[in-house]
Amino acid sequence: MAPITSLLTAENKKITGNALQGALVDLIDLALIGKQAHWNLTGRFFRPIHLQLDDIVKLARKKADSVAERAVAIGVNPDGRASTIVHDSQLSHMDAGPIEDGKVIAVMTDILESIIRRMRERIDATERADPVSQDLLIGLTRDLEMHHWMIQAQR
Amino acid sequence: MAPITSLLTAENKKITGNALQGALVDLIDLALIGKQAHWNLTGRFFRPIHLQLDDIVKLARKKADSVAERAVAIGVNPDGRASTIVHDSQLSHMDAGPIEDGKVIAVMTDILESIIRRMRERIDATERADPVSQDLLIGLTRDLEMHHWMIQAQR
Amino acid sequence: MAPITSLLTAENKKITGNALQGALVDLIDLALIGKQAHWNLTGRFFRPIHLQLDDIVKLARKKADSVAERAVAIGVNPDGRASTIVHDSQLSHMDAGPIEDGKVIAVMTDILESIIRRMRERIDATERADPVSQDLLIGLTRDLEMHHWMIQAQR
Amino acid sequence: MAPITSLLTAENKKITGNALQGALVDLIDLALIGKQAHWNLTGRFFRPIHLQLDDIVKLARKKADSVAERAVAIGVNPDGRASTIVHDSQLSHMDAGPIEDGKVIAVMTDILESIIRRMRERIDATERADPVSQDLLIGLTRDLEMHHWMIQAQR
Amino acid sequence: MAPITSLLTAENKKITGNALQGALVDLIDLALIGKQAHWNLTGRFFRPIHLQLDDIVKLARKKADSVAERAVAIGVNPDGRASTIVHDSQLSHMDAGPIEDGKVIAVMTDILESIIRRMRERIDATERADPVSQDLLIGLTRDLEMHHWMIQAQR
Amino acid sequence: MAPITSLLTAENKKITGNALQGALVDLIDLALIGKQAHWNLTGRFFRPIHLQLDDIVKLARKKADSVAERAVAIGVNPDGRASTIVHDSQLSHMDAGPIEDGKVIAVMTDILESIIRRMRERIDATERADPVSQDLLIGLTRDLEMHHWMIQAQR
Amino acid sequence: MAPITSLLTAENKKITGNALQGALVDLIDLALIGKQAHWNLTGRFFRPIHLQLDDIVKLARKKADSVAERAVAIGVNPDGRASTIVHDSQLSHMDAGPIEDGKVIAVMTDILESIIRRMRERIDATERADPVSQDLLIGLTRDLEMHHWMIQAQR
Amino acid sequence: MAPITSLLTAENKKITGNALQGALVDLIDLALIGKQAHWNLTGRFFRPIHLQLDDIVKLARKKADSVAERAVAIGVNPDGRASTIVHDSQLSHMDAGPIEDGKVIAVMTDILESIIRRMRERIDATERADPVSQDLLIGLTRDLEMHHWMIQAQR
Amino acid sequence: MAPITSLLTAENKKITGNALQGALVDLIDLALIGKQAHWNLTGRFFRPIHLQLDDIVKLARKKADSVAERAVAIGVNPDGRASTIVHDSQLSHMDAGPIEDGKVIAVMTDILESIIRRMRERIDATERADPVSQDLLIGLTRDLEMHHWMIQAQR
Amino acid sequence: MAPITSLLTAENKKITGNALQGALVDLIDLALIGKQAHWNLTGRFFRPIHLQLDDIVKLARKKADSVAERAVAIGVNPDGRASTIVHDSQLSHMDAGPIEDGKVIAVMTDILESIIRRMRERIDATERADPVSQDLLIGLTRDLEMHHWMIQAQR
Amino acid sequence: MAPITSLLTAENKKITGNALQGALVDLIDLALIGKQAHWNLTGRFFRPIHLQLDDIVKLARKKADSVAERAVAIGVNPDGRASTIVHDSQLSHMDAGPIEDGKVIAVMTDILESIIRRMRERIDATERADPVSQDLLIGLTRDLEMHHWMIQAQR
Amino acid sequence: MAPITSLLTAENKKITGNALQGALVDLIDLALIGKQAHWNLTGRFFRPIHLQLDDIVKLARKKADSVAERAVAIGVNPDGRASTIVHDSQLSHMDAGPIEDGKVIAVMTDILESIIRRMRERIDATERADPVSQDLLIGLTRDLEMHHWMIQAQR
Repeated sequence: MAPITSLLTAENKKITGNALQGALVDLIDLALIGKQAHWNLTGRFFRPIHLQLDDIVKLARKKADSVAERAVAIGVNPDGRASTIVHDSQLSHMDAGPIEDGKVIAVMTDILESIIRRMRERIDATERADPVSQDLLIGLTRDLEMHHWMIQAQR
Repeated sequence: MAPITSLLTAENKKITGNALQGALVDLIDLALIGKQAHWNLTGRFFRPIHLQLDDIVKLARKKADSVAERAVAIGVNPDGRASTIVHDSQLSHMDAGPIEDGKVIAVMTDILESIIRRMRERIDATERADPVSQDLLIGLTRDLEMHHWMIQAQR
Repeated sequence: MAPITSLLTAENKKITGNALQGALVDLIDLALIGKQAHWNLTGRFFRPIHLQLDDIVKLARKKADSVAERAVAIGVNPDGRASTIVHDSQLSHMDAGPIEDGKVIAVMTDILESIIRRMRERIDATERADPVSQDLLIGLTRDLEMHHWMIQAQR
Repeated sequence: MAPITSLLTAENKKITGNALQGALVDLIDLALIGKQAHWNLTGRFFRPIHLQLDDIVKLARKKADSVAERAVAIGVNPDGRASTIVHDSQLSHMDAGPIEDGKVIAVMTDILESIIRRMRERIDATERADPVSQDLLIGLTRDLEMHHWMIQAQR
Repeated sequence: MAPITSLLTAENKKITGNALQGALVDLIDLALIGKQAHWNLTGRFFRPIHLQLDDIVKLARKKADSVAERAVAIGVNPDGRASTIVHDSQLSHMDAGPIEDGKVIAVMTDILESIIRRMRERIDATERADPVSQDLLIGLTRDLEMHHWMIQAQR
Repeated sequence: MAPITSLLTAENKKITGNALQGALVDLIDLALIGKQAHWNLTGRFFRPIHLQLDDIVKLARKKADSVAERAVAIGVNPDGRASTIVHDSQLSHMDAGPIEDGKVIAVMTDILESIIRRMRERIDATERADPVSQDLLIGLTRDLEMHHWMIQAQR
Repeated sequence: MAPITSLLTAENKKITGNALQGALVDLIDLALIGKQAHWNLTGRFFRPIHLQLDDIVKLARKKADSVAERAVAIGVNPDGRASTIVHDSQLSHMDAGPIEDGKVIAVMTDILESIIRRMRERIDATERADPVSQDLLIGLTRDLEMHHWMIQAQR
Repeated sequence: MAPITSLLTAENKKITGNALQGALVDLIDLALIGKQAHWNLTGRFFRPIHLQLDDIVKLARKKADSVAERAVAIGVNPDGRASTIVHDSQLSHMDAGPIEDGKVIAVMTDILESIIRRMRERIDATERADPVSQDLLIGLTRDLEMHHWMIQAQR
Repeated sequence: MAPITSLLTAENKKITGNALQGALVDLIDLALIGKQAHWNLTGRFFRPIHLQLDDIVKLARKKADSVAERAVAIGVNPDGRASTIVHDSQLSHMDAGPIEDGKVIAVMTDILESIIRRMRERIDATERADPVSQDLLIGLTRDLEMHHWMIQAQR
Repeated sequence: MAPITSLLTAENKKITGNALQGALVDLIDLALIGKQAHWNLTGRFFRPIHLQLDDIVKLARKKADSVAERAVAIGVNPDGRASTIVHDSQLSHMDAGPIEDGKVIAVMTDILESIIRRMRERIDATERADPVSQDLLIGLTRDLEMHHWMIQAQR
Repeated sequence: MAPITSLLTAENKKITGNALQGALVDLIDLALIGKQAHWNLTGRFFRPIHLQLDDIVKLARKKADSVAERAVAIGVNPDGRASTIVHDSQLSHMDAGPIEDGKVIAVMTDILESIIRRMRERIDATERADPVSQDLLIGLTRDLEMHHWMIQAQR
Repeated sequence: MAPITSLLTAENKKITGNALQGALVDLIDLALIGKQAHWNLTGRFFRPIHLQLDDIVKLARKKADSVAERAVAIGVNPDGRASTIVHDSQLSHMDAGPIEDGKVIAVMTDILESIIRRMRERIDATERADPVSQDLLIGLTRDLEMHHWMIQAQR
């Protein structure tokens, strides 16, 4: 079984692979937490937030797929298993059970901010290493920042 | 924050809630593993299996959503967080890194069979407790069994 | 004009016919009340509830059609005339004139709960009498219970 | 809860409100009777009439919505509850049970003619009071007259 | 070539396999006879019946596919070859050549009734053996009974 | 460059041209202000109002196009330049910077009311001058009044 | 064969019937001439005019259908036979054979102007006789005037 | 204005041009008569025939366009003006006013048969002269014959 | 019940009728066998062949319908009953039970070749008898030959 | 009312905010001027330019929305009010009244060139300050330059 | 690797293969030249010709695919490589660089005429050899001749 | 005929023009070779590779269009004529005749790799010269690399 080859140097491949794997973990956990809140939400703002969370989950799943396929395209195997997410994710903890609308706004604002901060570091890290991957990270960061604003506007 | 009420007895609600929560864990992990294989797959059968795995992931995500919304509708809060999946899932382990097509067929056959076995136990358990939830479990089991056949036909 | 025949025994046909006719009355009145609230709603939550009520009306109309066509398919003539609805419906009364958003949430929660209670009795009643009709009732009860949760989550 | 305001004078608002409320009752009852006939129809002309009745019901529902939303837009609360329909509707009575195709044609011809007669009176009444509402009534009367012709052509 | 396995016991697999194979034969022959009548139909009611028959054929083909795929999914090979249809089908005979509209109504009423009778026996037979297959049979029986009513209403 | 000719008298053309040009200014400014609020909105009701404002902008743009093309069709050149909007528009002022949801509801209620008042004057003015243009103004006024109600219901 | 009845007085029915029959002749001839020019056109402006003529033909056919169905709906039989068009049409003559683009613009400008002039007379004539038919004529006149402007702008 | 040239000999161009011009006259008159019957139809079969006639008109219009564009493509100017149709058409006469369904079936059967007879002569005539045009005529004849059968089956 | 008439001579009608009936038998049996293989297929190439067979079945059903409707259009009643297929079909036998992918490729290659051979004989036979039917046979033969190549390329 | 926060430094936020606000003014004014020309255009090239201008307006509106939402996402309130456009826009002046096609080509070429020049300066300015915003500006500049070429090719 | 077989004789296969390969070369070069002109076009007629050329390219690509797949279906390998196009194509030369609209019309008229001439020779050549391929060539020649007329009409 | 102007310096225009012209040659040749393999492919993997190649061709054609239009937008005339492709392309040679699936995988892997290498050089070259063109090259390189991976995974 021959490994997938790419034109990146070993150094650049490692830097880019780390950035993409980190982004993958963030995005999969964002999708899982987004669904958790989508289901367990309560409060008068149920309907608009219920719908908004699904938009975020949809974005996270789509971008996770692009990021993982980009990783394998440069010869790095992505890892999106549940155990990896639990081990590596840095997102805020969310308790089980019902969760009120105001609490969801606060938690999601924090989570999105922390993901965006790491994404911006990955954009810097990949600028020299692989501008093609960087372009992908820039695009998804713009989308995440738009959702960050829309969630934040409701505090 | 008043709890969501339902017309089920406490006993039936507990039985049905357990069945739905178990199904949710199976389906979320199936989606994560399916994507893991979708990305890291290699071999001559790459393309058809790559596509087939996405069909399975799509099914698992859709049914996970129905199962979780059914749980909350009967007053039980579903739990689909990564840590819960890692703790409760009984699916076979899949190693990180590239994975050959023949291996994927074997692993997915096992995984689907073990999920189907548990789903059939849940169908029995909910027959008296809540026929409405049972109907949902029957429907998704039919879909899982169809994929089990299609994967198995390739051994 | 020969009557429509079916393969059900007279006894089973009567039991099933009653269940379907009762479901039809519930669903038509639900659609009428849903529209009444959709039009006369006021309050800051106007837009999300306005849209949600239309989802419920759409469901009620579609299922009323399925239930009525099922009745005639087993040889029982359904009755969905306004006078029959007024005479037989057991839904809560709703006053004319403007109605505030909080009030709508409370009334719709009650109405959906009372419909679901009767639907579950009909599911039991038709289990032996006609599993085909029972299957239809199970499916629509699942949809009603999902809306019950979503409305209730806003109390 | 502040009432919805409009720019119409009290007198014009009353005239227009009456016209719209009357139209709403006619249209909702037309939809209920159309469905009743759609389900209980028999005879060799079953299929074309079965389909035609659904076209009429679809029109009646859509226009009832426009009429009711127009009423609330000028500050008059529409009333489409079942009891109001039974109390105020002037449409011909239709017996329960199976109904032959020829009978349906006759009854629907009468019903449409009586609705159209009242709609034309409402068009006259609103000409000065509110040309915007009149324009809506003119449009739906054209559609009703088209169906009147098509039903009538089958006598 | 390893056989497709399933989790059903040998006994339940045999019962369910027989029910599905019987349903398959009924549905394929229904589609062939429906097309035969669709083409050779004559009489004043040509157009509505010509269209209605195509609706029935479309249903029969779609459900035959679901039934056959369900059979193979439980490890039973479906048999839909022409010789099997001829040997096993119990549907009424239809002569070659032109066939008048009144005759088509009579023949199709008989054929649908006999299929429905056997489908209800299969629903009973599979209740214990395989509720997943039973659910599929219940759903298609509801559709067949709806067409039985619509055809019968034209006698 | 020959001017576009029309069949209206000079007097009627002037009256109608003024009405259409006035409507154009109102609609373009409504679209600009609607977008301004759509972007700078804050508060818990962010999402439903954000979406509702886009519905209003979409309507205003579409009708502005119809009004302007109607003007040129009768030989009057419409003027929709920014400087003309600033000079002629009578809509309420909206400050730059963030704007809370309650404020948006209040401002949009006022703006829509003032536009509707002028549109009704234009309907009167064009009744004799050009019933074709009047019909266009009647239709768009109905749409504006519907939005006026929906915004106002949230006070 | 009972005649189609309507609620118009004999006098109003005659006035309206004449207006609609006249409009029908104009629209059918417009469609035939538009196609004639569409096919035989030559010159550098071939493509844009070729497409624009088809827009006009499409409009004329659609409106002819509405006008004719309106006529029969009020109890007047429309007449759209070729011989009637030849006998009654007042449109400019168009020679057989190839026709240059500049000529098409000139002829179509004249034809549209003459149709619009007659349509405006019909709008006046039907104002009292039947406002429902008038509304239909006003709408199609607006569309014709839009095309008149667009064609005229190319002189 | 240079004439459109083609590669056909003068003789073949004349034969083919005649065939296409004849087909054009037949198809335009078929569309006009089909609409005339579509509007003035009466009787119990109103709805299915009303729809069927529109299918025929749609076919005739589409094929007339293909035939005319084919003519000009070989350098022959098609002529579809009303006066040409009246002068050259050989279709049966249809009286003005209401027309019963049985009569429509009879007339349309005759008309389609006569058109088909001439189309088959044109197929023979163009076999040597221009097989490209012949192919177009064969295709439209198949469609006309299908409609001929469907209309004829209703006698 | 008058027979459907056509303009073909008795001799040509017989030749063409035989060709079309033969084609109908081939196409219906192809659809049945294609589905049989679609369901009972096994092997690593399961998925692409499973999909490819459905393309073939879809083609066969669509063309069978065109062929049968063409037959009745020329006055010959098509016969597509199961017993006729068994009696007249010349396609290779396919055993019941599971069938490996390589075997399916071999069998389908043979079956398509034998159908194509007969279709080409029918093209010759109908050249004089009825070029309209011949054109239909030429078109479907091209599609069959394309599938023959695609299947054959996998040997 | 808490301001929207972002991760940019105050300096970078100011630079990026200025670039986005400047782009917003350019795009809104481009849309207003494009519509002005779309309506008041005259000349032989009316139709192709009329359509092309609408493509440009559509682009400008869509990108204005993206730019404004990007601004608020980084904590800068966009300002798209008419008075701001008049005050800040640097686009060429366009006179009121009819405008010939050649003039439109010249003016639009100038306007697009001046916008593109400023957009390129903004691309440079944001390269360090915020690559995410820069990416948005690059994409819209490519679209503007494509239209600049297409307009310019017609000089 | 077994060659693809077909039922054509060696002689007919050679004749047909040559015709199809020749058509393939013509169509691919037409698509390349069409795009070249589409991109480098200048002049006041830029927009309509720019769009028209894309219609031609779209046709050429679609038909090239049909022709090549037809070749391989009869056992002849098509050759569409760039070197083959350069070696075998007989189309007129087109210079690099900008090309004025009048020049494009002239060149495309020549190119289409020369392709049509060869296509007609191929239609003759395949009449006996393979009527199925001939039918394909006839169809695409009709489309090419339509474009030839439309381009030529602009000289 | 005035040249298309742009805001790039002569030096930057030359660098960017060379990069875009080189990309155009690569993409057109990729499309031609992809189609050649699509048609002449043999082997058991026929169907999935046949479809995959069409995805690549579709991408190459779409991006070639974007690249060429970008070139002309900056004032450089693109050259996509067959002779230019033959002269300038550096892609691997592909023999005429049938080509086995394994061979296609190998050749396409090489071709995609060589194109990607050159694209990355072009990305570097345009970074200073024209970031707008660079952005286009980055996007298409990402798509090419995704296909490179998918093809390569099948070795």
